[in-house]
Order: sequence, then C-alpha cells, then structure tokens
Amino acid sequence: MTNTAVAVIGLGMMGQALAAAFVNAAYPTTVWNRTPGKAERLVEMGASQAPTVADAVEAAPLVIVCVRDYDAVRESLAPAEAHLSGKVLVNLTSGASDEARAMAGWAAERGAGYLDGAIMMTPPGIGAPETVILYGGSPQLYETHEKILAVLGGGTLLLSDDVGIPSLYDVALLGIMWSTFNGFMHAAALLNTEKIAATDFLPFAKDWLTGVASFLTTYANQIDAGDYAASDATLETQLPPLLHLLHESRIRGIDATMHEYTKTLLDEAIANGHALDSYARIIEHFRTPAA
Amino acid sequence: MTNTAVAVIGLGMMGQALAAAFVNAAYPTTVWNRTPGKAERLVEMGASQAPTVADAVEAAPLVIVCVRDYDAVRESLAPAEAHLSGKVLVNLTSGASDEARAMAGWAAERGAGYLDGAIMMTPPGIGAPETVILYGGSPQLYETHEKILAVLGGGTLLLSDDVGIPSLYDVALLGIMWSTFNGFMHAAALLNTEKIAATDFLPFAKDWLTGVASFLTTYANQIDAGDYAASDATLETQLPPLLHLLHESRIRGIDATMHEYTKTLLDEAIANGHALDSYARIIEHFRTPAA
Ligand SMILES: NC(=O)c1ccc[n+]([C@@H]2O[C@H](COP(=O)([O-])OP(=O)(O)OC[C@H]3O[C@@H](n4cnc5c(N)ncnc54)[C@H](OP(=O)(O)O)[C@@H]3O)[C@@H](O)[C@H]2O)c1
Ligand SMILES: NC(=O)c1ccc[n+]([C@@H]2O[C@H](COP(=O)([O-])OP(=O)(O)OC[C@H]3O[C@@H](n4cnc5c(N)ncnc54)[C@H](OP(=O)(O)O)[C@@H]3O)[C@@H](O)[C@H]2O)c1
Repeated sequence: MTNTAVAVIGLGMMGQALAAAFVNAAYPTTVWNRTPGKAERLVEMGASQAPTVADAVEAAPLVIVCVRDYDAVRESLAPAEAHLSGKVLVNLTSGASDEARAMAGWAAERGAGYLDGAIMMTPPGIGAPETVILYGGSPQLYETHEKILAVLGGGTLLLSDDVGIPSLYDVALLGIMWSTFNGFMHAAALLNTEKIAATDFLPFAKDWLTGVASFLTTYANQIDAGDYAASDATLETQLPPLLHLLHESRIRGIDATMHEYTKTLLDEAIANGHALDSYARIIEHFRTPAA
Repeated sequence: MTNTAVAVIGLGMMGQALAAAFVNAAYPTTVWNRTPGKAERLVEMGASQAPTVADAVEAAPLVIVCVRDYDAVRESLAPAEAHLSGKVLVNLTSGASDEARAMAGWAAERGAGYLDGAIMMTPPGIGAPETVILYGGSPQLYETHEKILAVLGGGTLLLSDDVGIPSLYDVALLGIMWSTFNGFMHAAALLNTEKIAATDFLPFAKDWLTGVASFLTTYANQIDAGDYAASDATLETQLPPLLHLLHESRIRGIDATMHEYTKTLLDEAIANGHALDSYARIIEHFRTPAA
C-alpha cells in the first residue's frame, strides 16, 4: 500500500519545512512556489516540482497551502481554481478567524473540502513529537487525513468544526507569549541596572513562571465559575508591590507603560468594589466591550 | 542543645504564618503585634506573647519583622530602639531597594545586624520545601542564621551582599507575573467570545508557557552576549500575527492596549533596522532611559 500523495503550495521557510517532513515520511510530495528556485533541496530529497500551480493541485488529493497571508492564498491558487473540485485544501497560512471562515466558503464554492490549521511552532520544529498544530473543520475530513497531518507534528489535533477557531487560539497564545516576553524584558532591564546578568536572573524567572502557571489553573476555574473570591492573594494586597515596581522603574529610568496599565486594571477593579477578589476578576475588564 | 530563640514582630497574615513555622520547628518564639488579639492561636501552639515590642526584641537574638511597609517597620520598632544593639534584624516586609538600603543604615546606627528578605509566596506556602525567600546582606550574617531562616522555605537563599537586591528581584518577578496574567486574561476573554471556557483553553496556555520559557533561555543568552540575531522567529515575522491579534481584539470588542504597546515595541525595533533580530532585541527599549 502506497502513501497518499500530497501537494505543498508555498516554499517559504515554513512551506519548505512542511514539504521536507512529508518527503521524509515517504509521502509522494509535489511542490510549487511562486518564485522559482526554492524547490532544489526538496527535489534532491525526492520531491517532484510542478511547473504550474494547477499541475501541483492535479498531482494530489490533499493540497497544503502555506504562504504569506490569506490574500496570497487566493492569488497563488487562482490559476488552479478549475482543478480544486474534489480536492481537500489544508490551509496552514496564518490569519484571522474571519479570513479563515471566508476561505472555507471560497473553497466550498470551488467544490473543495477545507481544513484550516495554525502551526504553533517555528519551521525547525516541524515533524517533532511536541509540535502543536491546531485544526478547525469537518471532523470527518480531519479524521480521513489525520495520519498524514500528524507527520507535521505530534501535537496535531482538531479543535472545532469551526474553521475560524484555530486562528483565534493562535493569536490568543501569541498574545500570552508577547505579554510574558515584555514582562521578562522589563524585568531583565531592571536587574541589569544593578549589573545582574539576564542569564543569572533566568532560573528565577523560569521557576517563577511555573508558579504563575499554577495560579492560572485557579483563575481559569474561577473565571468559568464566575466566582473570583480570593483565598490569599487579593487585588488589594497586590497594589503596594505594584507601586514598588513602578517606583523602581522610575528611579532606574525603565519604561513601565505595561505596569501602569496593570495599575489601571487593579484600580478599576478595586473602585468597582472587588478589592478582596483574586486577579481572575480582571477578566471582567476584557469582557466589557472596549471603547 | 536548644534551638536559638526568635522574635516575630507583626502578626498579619504573613507574620502569623512565619511565627507558626518557627513554633512548629521547635524554635522558642516570642511574638508581638501592634493591635492585640492576633497572637491567640500562636500562644496556643506554644509561642510567647511579649507585652511590648521592647520585650519581644529583648527575648531573642534574631528579630524577624514583617509588617505592612517600611514606614511601619520604623514605627513598630521605635519603642525598642534602645534594645536593638547586638541583635540581628531580618526584615521580611515588602518594599523597594532604596528603602531596604536605608533600613540597613538605620539598623547599623542602632548597632543591629541587618538582612533583608523577599518572600516569593503567599502565607499558606510558608514552610514548604519549594517556597522561595530571597535574601540580601552580609554572607557571614546569613550563614550564621541560615538554618533557622530555612524553616520558612526550602528555597531560601542569599542573592547578594547588597540588601537592596531582593526587593528588586521581587518586583521584577511580580512584573513578569502581572504581564503573564494580563496576557492570559485577554486571551481567555477573546476565546470566551466564541463560548470557549477558560478551563478548556488552560491546558493549551500552560503547554505554551513551557515553550515561551524555553525561548527565554535563548533570549537571556542573546541579551548577555549583546547579539540578537534570530535563528528563526524574527521581529519582522511577528508583525503580521500581531496585526491579526489586534484585528481579532477589535472585531470582538476586547481591550488590546497591552498588544498595541507590543506593536510600538516591534515598530520601534524594526524602524531602528532590527527587523531580522529576535525578540531579545526589545531589551534595548527598556535599557533606553524612559522619557
Ligand atoms: N516561520 C514561522 O516561524 C511560522 C510559524 C507559524 C506560522 N507561520 C506562517 O506560515 C506562513 C508562511 O510563513 P513563512 O515563514 O514560510 O514565510 P516566508 O518565508 O516569508 O515565505 C512566504 C511565502 O509566501 C509566498 N507568497 C507571498 N506572497 C505570495 C503571493 N501573492 N502569491 C503566491 N505566493 C506568495 C512566498 O513566495 P515567494 O517565494 O514567491 O515570495 C513564500 O513562499 C505565514 O502565514 C506565517 O505566518 C510561520
Ligand atoms: N500576604 C502575602 O501574600 C504576602 C506575600 C509576600 C510578602 N508579603 C509582605 O508581608 C508584609 C505583611 O503582609 P501581610 O499579608 O501580613 O499584611 P496584613 O495581613 O495586612 O498585616 C499587616 C501587618 O502590619 C502591621 N502594621 C501595619 N502598620 C503598622 C504600623 N504603623 N506599626 C506597626 N505595625 C503595623 C499590622 O498590624 P495591626 O494588626 O496592628 O494592623 C499587621 O500586623 C507586607 O509587606 C507584604 O507585602 C505578603
């Protein structure tokens, strides 16, 4: 029994990693890229290079597309539109949930099945057992192609039958990443004013993040229950240390915009009578429609 | 051989937990609090209650103080000033680095040794093996009292001979905590617009934070080396997903102030010619004196 054929459209850093993983797993792989010259290494490994995008789509029942953005998805597939009927399009391009939903409609109009995926990893991690790729779309379609999709990452899973959901998880997780990065950069700069190296601070920060993550478990449960009563760390007790943080930032000349924002969040919750609640109460700020 | 005696000044939530840990570890413990009536449970456990703060200080060579803030430290110890000579004062009150340094001078003027500590835990964690308490002060003084101090937490350690350093680590770590909390609350609110529960999102967020922490290792090394060249995730490649995050926040009415701030950081670094650097480059923003 031979493996299903797969086509990979888009050979940027990510597309090349995806195609290489399929070739390495012995799936017949056809590749195409707008600008020529990016398939050489893949062809040496055993991939076929299609002369046109239509040829690439013709070559396989499963078509993976991973280009710059959703406009580029439409542009790259335009010359192959007539060949999409009966194919399954797996879009691993990053975008927003509304774009993913529109793209599913676009594919349906052309008779193609559609899965939307969010790759939560950089290209070197493609194919690794811990690599997470989140999918949205028809469970039946996903199950049919689950084995080949799992080639790209051991943490491949279907989140929802709504194709917009992976994009939302994607940006939500990236938001946590940037927030944490910013907190770390601010902290490292603060310590650096005392000539403390970032690598000396790092083990403290990492152990601390483990504790922070365990607080998130408590808070997630409080959020879902809608009950924010604090057992120990109340919002009120967090205000004095926050003022110390702002003070240290000021005397050391470090931009503390992000922590002034935290102060507005604490002040608002306390002014609304929630001084004895936990930090989980802050979710209500984000739930209130922004002005 | 009997254990050293210890005095605990301040019986708020934290002071009570500290005193209880000493009593449980069989250290003769004398307690005092400004407002009476907070020592009852401790006295039942075996602590002695001193009638005045001067009596408390007289009762032990090691005096732990844990009150609201540094002003309260001075106020509570004022009536005991004449009794401080030859004592070792261990201040576990939260404050800023400049306050800790001033307090060490205040203690020295009164002939007392001084250690400053930052408790990185809420009261229920006092005495646990994983509880971190960070100290600054004379290594000789610390070593003399290391055994009794370790009663309060297994992760007790001397950071520096500078008494101001624990306060700085304290606020730096808390800053990372608030940043991460804010990122999580924003993310959970975003998903909640699609009726996804915080507890359903939680395992993704926790696994993701493990990955974020491993990026911090790379970044800490780059920061110390002053070389921010990215191997994969460049600042430039992070801009499109950040725009998606802002877009999702906008269409769902979720306050994205913190991520607009991230955009100013990315824009600034890219405008300064660092598009191909990693996120570690952002440290330079915080190193540049804030206006
Ligand atoms: N790199 C990562 O760490 C990472 C991680 C997760 C997700 N992603 C996502 O994966 C997707 C691809 O990223 P990448 O890192 O591979 O980017 P990249 O290296 O910049 O490559 C971009 C690809 O898009 C193609 N493209 C751009 N505009 C096009 C158009 N109008 N028509 C046809 N093709 C077009 C490019 O073709 P040319 O060669 O002809 O320019 C190239 O193949 C993006 O959505 C990205 O957000 C990347
Ligand atoms: N709780 C935590 O999670 C935690 C974690 C780490 C660090 N800390 C730090 O530990 C310290 C104490 O916190 P806590 O949780 O115990 O606070 P708390 O429960 O509010 O207790 C405050 C204590 O300070 C005393 N106090 C306030 N003003 C005073 C004054 N002018 N003179 C004498 N005593 C005064 C109070 O005495 P009265 O009873 O007479 O009012 C009480 O004993 C703070 O610096 C806090 O930041 C707390």
